[in-house]
Amino acid sequence: MEQLLRVQNFNVSSDGIGAGEHQSLERPFGLDPGAMFTWAGATASWPMRTDPGGSRGLDDYLTRDYARNIGAEIMGRNKFGPHRGPWDDHEWRGWWGDEPPFRTPVFVMTHHARPSFALSDTTFHFVEGDPATVLQQARAAAAGKDVRLGGGVTTIRQFLDADLVDTMHVAVSPVRFGSGLRLWDSPDELLDRFHLDVVPSPSGVTHHLFWRR
Amino acid sequence: MEQLLRVQNFNVSSDGIGAGEHQSLERPFGLDPGAMFTWAGATASWPMRTDPGGSRGLDDYLTRDYARNIGAEIMGRNKFGPHRGPWDDHEWRGWWGDEPPFRTPVFVMTHHARPSFALSDTTFHFVEGDPATVLQQARAAAAGKDVRLGGGVTTIRQFLDADLVDTMHVAVSPVRFGSGLRLWDSPDELLDRFHLDVVPSPSGVTHHLFWRR
Repeated sequence: MEQLLRVQNFNVSSDGIGAGEHQSLERPFGLDPGAMFTWAGATASWPMRTDPGGSRGLDDYLTRDYARNIGAEIMGRNKFGPHRGPWDDHEWRGWWGDEPPFRTPVFVMTHHARPSFALSDTTFHFVEGDPATVLQQARAAAAGKDVRLGGGVTTIRQFLDADLVDTMHVAVSPVRFGSGLRLWDSPDELLDRFHLDVVPSPSGVTHHLFWRR
Repeated sequence: MEQLLRVQNFNVSSDGIGAGEHQSLERPFGLDPGAMFTWAGATASWPMRTDPGGSRGLDDYLTRDYARNIGAEIMGRNKFGPHRGPWDDHEWRGWWGDEPPFRTPVFVMTHHARPSFALSDTTFHFVEGDPATVLQQARAAAAGKDVRLGGGVTTIRQFLDADLVDTMHVAVSPVRFGSGLRLWDSPDELLDRFHLDVVPSPSGVTHHLFWRR
């Protein structure tokens, strides 16, 4: 059974920006993401949802795919936290509280060693290596299931450059940031290697669904 | 946990017709469905797929949802087979060969008793009763998961009339049949009770995604 590397529910602005440059504890995205994620939070299957309800239309098909057949996640260090350099603060255990939405092993790419730890159903491992090596570790941990590539922008670009991404869902929101960490100038840059369905949603975002040629 | 009743990947023509009137062993749909199902067969997640490959864009999000969290199916007798009246031919075990794609208990609505039987992971039960009673049986068998309402048109209409359907995905194909069993004159008939996202696909079908208001 093929184990895919999948980007799921990654959000960028209409100018292709996923995050700003001055990330801090208070600003995980380094900028005010504004309404960028509203579409996802409104769905019944949003992984962070705590109350019943929510929409079950097109957007919900995307959020409900977040965990389907996923056995591990890979993320960049900046998705895990705003710290740079050695891990001085081992009390910091991610943005997500005591119940992180991943519920699988998570591999955080970093040049600085740190012991693994578990939070509820999620176990964070801190690993150094090139994308192919980290993917190999994540695949082994996923036990036959797919691996989700969680972001941010820099990490996704690394794996795209290494040609390791199999499918990618990017929601493009109708906001414009002007500057920040850019996933692309245009999604068309990827058409040499990927098929692309461009699907406008009634919520205002445009879902970009890529799969390998 | 709420157990939804879900219609998944049901196909109709642009004039709302799901099947013709003269069903036979050779013509399960009573008419030549032509290209009506092409979109689904082209996807990686099509339940009947036997070879690798297939698209992973918008249409695949729909076919991959077919089995997600489904614990039982309800179908009308005419989806199971072309026979009418008492079950004379117990050799007939459905259209799907030795590996039916359901892989759960399936409840076939019929006025004529017949013993249950299993084919691979699927068990067919033959039940009489109004929609609410049959749904109750299917929910018990689904063990907390959702129930799929498999069709055909007459059966879906029955459950819609009884207001038992929670979500419904209908793919409208760009073919016109003129006469046959009609799901609707227009999808707008359901807007008093359902939200509706209308999503055109690059494959040519238009996905209609309904969820309860």
